[in-house]
Amino acid sequence: MKVDGKAYRTIWLAEDRRAVEIIDQTRLPHAFVTARLETLEDVVHAISQMLVRGAPLIGAAAAYGVCLALQQDASDDSLARAQQSLLATRPTAINLLWALEEMRAAVEPLPLEQRPAAAYKRAVEICDEDVAINESIGEHGLDLIRRLWESKGKPSRLNILTHCNAGWLATVDWGTALAAVYKAHAAGVPVHVWVDETRPRNQGASLTAWELNHQGIPHTVIADNAGGHLMQHGLVDMCIVGTDRTTATGDVCNKIGTYLKALAARDNDVPFYVAVPSPSIDWDLDDGLAQIPIEQRDDDEVARVTGRTQSGEVVAVTIIPDGSPVANYAFDVTPARYITGLITERGICTASREGIQGLFAHRAR
Amino acid sequence: MKVDGKAYRTIWLAEDRRAVEIIDQTRLPHAFVTARLETLEDVVHAISQMLVRGAPLIGAAAAYGVCLALQQDASDDSLARAQQSLLATRPTAINLLWALEEMRAAVEPLPLEQRPAAAYKRAVEICDEDVAINESIGEHGLDLIRRLWESKGKPSRLNILTHCNAGWLATVDWGTALAAVYKAHAAGVPVHVWVDETRPRNQGASLTAWELNHQGIPHTVIADNAGGHLMQHGLVDMCIVGTDRTTATGDVCNKIGTYLKALAARDNDVPFYVAVPSPSIDWDLDDGLAQIPIEQRDDDEVARVTGRTQSGEVVAVTIIPDGSPVANYAFDVTPARYITGLITERGICTASREGIQGLFAHRAR
Repeated sequence: MKVDGKAYRTIWLAEDRRAVEIIDQTRLPHAFVTARLETLEDVVHAISQMLVRGAPLIGAAAAYGVCLALQQDASDDSLARAQQSLLATRPTAINLLWALEEMRAAVEPLPLEQRPAAAYKRAVEICDEDVAINESIGEHGLDLIRRLWESKGKPSRLNILTHCNAGWLATVDWGTALAAVYKAHAAGVPVHVWVDETRPRNQGASLTAWELNHQGIPHTVIADNAGGHLMQHGLVDMCIVGTDRTTATGDVCNKIGTYLKALAARDNDVPFYVAVPSPSIDWDLDDGLAQIPIEQRDDDEVARVTGRTQSGEVVAVTIIPDGSPVANYAFDVTPARYITGLITERGICTASREGIQGLFAHRAR
Repeated sequence: MKVDGKAYRTIWLAEDRRAVEIIDQTRLPHAFVTARLETLEDVVHAISQMLVRGAPLIGAAAAYGVCLALQQDASDDSLARAQQSLLATRPTAINLLWALEEMRAAVEPLPLEQRPAAAYKRAVEICDEDVAINESIGEHGLDLIRRLWESKGKPSRLNILTHCNAGWLATVDWGTALAAVYKAHAAGVPVHVWVDETRPRNQGASLTAWELNHQGIPHTVIADNAGGHLMQHGLVDMCIVGTDRTTATGDVCNKIGTYLKALAARDNDVPFYVAVPSPSIDWDLDDGLAQIPIEQRDDDEVARVTGRTQSGEVVAVTIIPDGSPVANYAFDVTPARYITGLITERGICTASREGIQGLFAHRAR
């Protein structure tokens, strides 16, 4: 996507091809800053500290982490260490495991001297595949949005609610949920996006709002608490969110709070869709609530909020009293029964084993 | 309640009996500061800027606002102007209208020279009645909590989730939802409170956490998004919230986001109770969603967060990008069908016209 007229992806090979560069997402929306990652440790830090985040982008970054490790030492030991330290960064997004498996399969059979080049080749492919997948999700989402808009008599504003950031910043490019919004806007559907703030890390207020702003998409930032009220009053035509891991049966793990919006959507007959690139599907799981590990992150994410002071300084402020404990669950699971459909790169299906198998028969186990 | 060993209410007559004093709740949790209100305008400012907030306390403050106005000018015109300007401060809490009606009834029939004293007398009564009502709600809530705890085999921790602040800071003393928690804790039930942060104004993180901290009640602050996940995993035994206005049919208007928690409670068979002092019941309404006016407050409440920097300064920081619009709905309505019961000063009833009439027959219209 373009930022102030210049086309960017969220991750790219540096010109010297000895490092990767990223947009440091912890600095948004107050500053647009890129960072250079030269070692496996740099990538581990970038993922765990969320300089890069979003399931598809975590996968892409991990792929490059393997490249940087093999560039220094192409041995089996080095590969295993890289896999292990990258896998330990974040437990929930299945794209991380997927990308690491892809990388291992691409380099393990090869003699050591061929491994670095093969790793870079596969990492670049993973990025390009992500972009193609997302663009396809965007096309299928556009169809859906356009049909909904037409079925409602082409109102002057079609309200889409999204939670967290499933935009181009969460992927290599285009985004998942927001790919559909970008395509719909470009196709002339008058979309307006309700942007959930997405506490505790505010990826909605800081990343989704920033993205939509830069692409000229009408939007309004709301507290996470507001979505139910909006749906009760007919102010939401549909919800589209992303996912960090979706089971083979269609249970959707996504940013904490997604489940509450799905309940409200059901209670108010609002269609609730999830944009799911196939690398986010965990083919081994059939019970999201019981089986998907939910990351618990640092207390500080709840206890402190980062923002810009009137003088322009970016600071973190503490919002709780001294002595009050905090809990910080990063994701929740929305059971498949609350999901109207999954928007995949191969089309839209029900959130069910049958639905997913209908599109991805050869992958089902 | 005691603050560092000294007993406080949230509002009290100044020693000179020519003003009222309050705890300035906009300064919590970072500073405990009282403020002196000498005029009607001071009270209007205190309510609209939320130095005092919480439906019962808004009612009490408004009563004193009438006193201060009549102290300067006891005419019918002055009374009408006071009623009008106080009523315009906040549209949702019905206690405001209730207290103003009570005050009018107490002073209107009297000759001018008797009005100020009669006004103070009624305002003091309203405050004392509020305390008695809340203590009674606390006793009924204690019964409920103790029975639930016993029915679960007296676990070592009974988890209660609350939203916003329905504690003593929201009332003259004791609180509504938290009165039950305070009584249960004192009675030896091992309660632990999940405290919803309650964006956008963070009354949970700043007020409820501060209250519970000062009373030594085990608690944990969570993002508003987390409650559904906790309920899915059996980590919430019951929810208790307050209300800003409850219809005669049991629809509950409360802080934005309450509805989402009620949906999650229903989906996970978690009892969802609302503590309702009778002055919060709007006997004229029978459809909360259609009839209760929902206040929309300043964008800044969503766009900026106030907290304490590492150096101890309290500042507001902007958390959204320049140019992103904001919407700020302050309340939502939870339909009666999602509410397990109402805890009133006369006992517990179903959230229905029949239930409420069973306890308050003479008030029903």
